[in-house]
Amino acid sequence: MKFGGTSVADADRIKRAARRIVEKREAGYSVVVVLSARGKTTDELISMAEEVSAAPDPREMDMLLSTGERISCALCAMAIHDLGHRAISLTGSQAGIVTDASHTKARIIDVRADRILSALKDDAIVLVAGFQGVSTTSSDVTTLGRGGSDTTAVALAAAVGAEVCEIYTDVPGVFSADPRIVSDARKLTSVSFEEMLEMAASGAGVLQLRSVEYARNENVRIHCRSSFDDCPGTFVVSEGENMEKPIITAVTHSTSESMITLIGVPHQPGIAARIFEALAQANVNVDMIDQNVPTSAGGRAEISFTVPHEDLRLATDALEAMGESVCERIATQREMGKVSIVGAGMRSHPGVAAKVFSVLAREGINIEMISTSPIKISCVIAREHVEQAVRSLHSAFELSGEGTIGQEEPFKAPTV
Amino acid sequence: MKFGGTSVADADRIKRAARRIVEKREAGYSVVVVLSARGKTTDELISMAEEVSAAPDPREMDMLLSTGERISCALCAMAIHDLGHRAISLTGSQAGIVTDASHTKARIIDVRADRILSALKDDAIVLVAGFQGVSTTSSDVTTLGRGGSDTTAVALAAAVGAEVCEIYTDVPGVFSADPRIVSDARKLTSVSFEEMLEMAASGAGVLQLRSVEYARNENVRIHCRSSFDDCPGTFVVSEGENMEKPIITAVTHSTSESMITLIGVPHQPGIAARIFEALAQANVNVDMIDQNVPTSAGGRAEISFTVPHEDLRLATDALEAMGESVCERIATQREMGKVSIVGAGMRSHPGVAAKVFSVLAREGINIEMISTSPIKISCVIAREHVEQAVRSLHSAFELSGEGTIGQEEPFKAPTV
Repeated sequence: MKFGGTSVADADRIKRAARRIVEKREAGYSVVVVLSARGKTTDELISMAEEVSAAPDPREMDMLLSTGERISCALCAMAIHDLGHRAISLTGSQAGIVTDASHTKARIIDVRADRILSALKDDAIVLVAGFQGVSTTSSDVTTLGRGGSDTTAVALAAAVGAEVCEIYTDVPGVFSADPRIVSDARKLTSVSFEEMLEMAASGAGVLQLRSVEYARNENVRIHCRSSFDDCPGTFVVSEGENMEKPIITAVTHSTSESMITLIGVPHQPGIAARIFEALAQANVNVDMIDQNVPTSAGGRAEISFTVPHEDLRLATDALEAMGESVCERIATQREMGKVSIVGAGMRSHPGVAAKVFSVLAREGINIEMISTSPIKISCVIAREHVEQAVRSLHSAFELSGEGTIGQEEPFKAPTV
Repeated sequence: MKFGGTSVADADRIKRAARRIVEKREAGYSVVVVLSARGKTTDELISMAEEVSAAPDPREMDMLLSTGERISCALCAMAIHDLGHRAISLTGSQAGIVTDASHTKARIIDVRADRILSALKDDAIVLVAGFQGVSTTSSDVTTLGRGGSDTTAVALAAAVGAEVCEIYTDVPGVFSADPRIVSDARKLTSVSFEEMLEMAASGAGVLQLRSVEYARNENVRIHCRSSFDDCPGTFVVSEGENMEKPIITAVTHSTSESMITLIGVPHQPGIAARIFEALAQANVNVDMIDQNVPTSAGGRAEISFTVPHEDLRLATDALEAMGESVCERIATQREMGKVSIVGAGMRSHPGVAAKVFSVLAREGINIEMISTSPIKISCVIAREHVEQAVRSLHSAFELSGEGTIGQEEPFKAPTV
C-alpha cells in the first residue's frame, strides 16, 4: 500500500490512512506500506535549501529531502500502535533499497528485503519511507527524484512477491481522459503496462513513468485507487490480464510544451547530431522531433522539436551559442500543447490516425507535429485548442463507454 | 564545534555558523561540527506526534525526532560548500555513535569514528547530526534525550582526540550567577568539571549535565562560548588546569521545586524504602530528602523531599495510593525554589555553610531544607525569595570579582 503526500498531510489523514492499513491487516494480509512526505514538506525543504545556497550540493539535498518521508512513517506507525497493532517504520536504507550514487535521481539497483520479511514474520505492519535509498559505494542517503515513492512501492512489491501494489492517491483511478476537461470521462477498470507507460509519458499524472516501467519489467500488478473511499480503482496489469480490449483506451494531453523550429539547417550529415548533443549537454528534455528534407539539392532543411516550456530558455541559449553553422534562424512557439490517443487495440486496427486527423480538422485545429508508436498517436497543437481537441477525440472514439463492461460511476471530486 | 538550535534557527544564522566554521578551518584546524535541530523543530515534531497518538511509541519517536538535526546538518553543509570548502553531513549512525536501545534516552556506548577520520583526512569539514545514534542490537535510530547534542559533541571530541570541544550557545559563557538576576555577575574564565557538574545539577542551564560527566570521564576540555561574538567564553577543564581558585565560584538557583512533607510517618525500618520505591516506580524525580526523627520512643517521624513541580501531582497520587500505612498526612508546598553555592575551594575552607545561613537569616529568608556536597551547599527556600537570596549571596561572597584576574566585560544580552 502506497499513500501519497495528500493522504498523510495532517494528523487526521494519517489516522485515516492508519485505519485503512489496519483494515487490510485484519483482513488477513501481510502489509508493507510506503509513504510520501506530508503535503508540502518536500517543497518547504527545497526552499530552505535555496535560501541557504545558490546551488545546493546533491548529496546534501538527499540528506535533507529524505527526512520528510521518515516523519510520515514514524507518525503513521504511532497511529497504528494506537489501533492495537504492531508496526515498525524503516528508512529506505533500513528497508534495503540499494541505489546507485546519482544523488537526487538515483536508480534502484537492488532490494535486500530481509529486514522487511523478518518484521512481517514478526506479525508487524512495515512502513517504509518512500523516495529514498542508500548508495552502494558510500552508504549515503540517496533519493529517487520526484514521485519516487511510487517506484519504491513497486520495487518493494516485487522484492517481497506481493499479490498487488496498491497506490492510494487523491483521484479514484485512471480515466479515459482528464475528468476536469471531459465530464463523462470513464474510470478504467484496467489498462496494460504498455498503455499506462504511453499515458504517463504523454501527460497522465496518476503514476510516475519510472514506476510503471519497473512494474512492467517485474510484472507487478498495480491497483491505482482513491485514499478517500473504498471503491475499486484501476488495475495496471500485463496485457494478457487486461480484460477490456477497446481500440482506444484514453485521450491524454499536456499543456506544457514549447516548440522550437530551426530554419535553414545545412542538409549535411552530422548536423542534427551536433544540435541534439548540445541540447542534451544543456540538460534539455527533448520530446518530439520532426525534420523537413529540402526538395532541391543544396537546399536547406527545417528541424522542429518540442521541449517542456520550462526548458525553452535553456534550449535557445544552447542553440544560439552554436552560432550560424547550424541554422539561419530559430523560431519558437512557447504556448503549445499535445493531445495523444492511446490504446493497445490500435495495433490491429488501421485507420485510427486518419480518424484523429479528420476529427481535429473538423474542429479547425492545426496539427504542428505528429509522433506515433504502435499504441499511441500524439499531435502537437496550439495550447488554446487542447481542451477542445481532448473533448472531440474522446467523443469521436466513444470513450465515455456507455454500455461498455467495466464502466464506473462518473468522477466525483474527492472532498479534500 | 557544537551549535545549538538558536544558532541555526534560520537561513541567515546557518550561513553565519558556516562562516564561523570555515574561519576555524582556514585557521588550520580539522573541524568536526555537531548541530542541533533548528529553533523549535523538535517541539513541533513532538506536538505532531501528540496529535497522532496519545502515547507515541519511543522507537518511532526517535525516528521522528532525529530528522531535525539532519536537516540542520544538510543545510549547513550546503552553506559551507558555497564558501568554497568541502563539507559532508553525517547522521548519528553514519558518524558511528553507537548507543544502547533505550529509545528517547539512549546512552552512548561506543563511538566508531572511522568515517569521520577518513573524511577529515580527505580535507572535508564533517557535520554530525547531534542528539542521536544507532542501537547495537537492531540498527535502529536512537536519541539521547533533551540537550543530547552537547553529549554528542563531547563524545566525538573524545573519540577523535580533539584539542577542545567548543559549545556555541546564545550566552557568552558560564557566569557567577544568572546575569538576568545579578547585574554584575561575572563571566568565569574557567571552572572545573566537578564545579560545572554541581552547577548544572543545581540549575545552571548552559551545559547538559550528562555532557559534563562525559567530559570529566574522558577529560575533554570544553569551551563554552557565544555564537554571536568572538569573545572567549568559559573553559570547563580538570581541576589542575583551573587557573582561578576562589573559595566560591558561583551561585546557582532553580525556581521549579515543590516540597512534599509526610507527617506522622511510623518510625520503623523499611518505611522510607517503601515510600521512595513507590515514587521511583511512578517516575518521580526526587531531589533532596530530609527526615526528622521522633524524640520519644514510639513517636512518629516527618519526611520531607523536593521534586520538580511538574512531578508534584504524580508524586502525591503515588503517595495517596499507599494509604495511611506510610503517614498520617501529606503536606505540599508547590511554589518553592533552591539556591546553591558552588566552589571547589570550599573543601579547604570551613565556615562557608555558616556564612550562607547567616546571609539568608539577615535577609529574613527561611531555609526549609539543606543539602551539601564537598563543593556545594543548597538551600530550599520559598520561590518568592530566590532572586533576593541569589543577589545577597553573590554580593556577600564578593563574586562580582572586582580586581580578580580573568574578569570579563559585564554580560550583554545577545541580539537574538
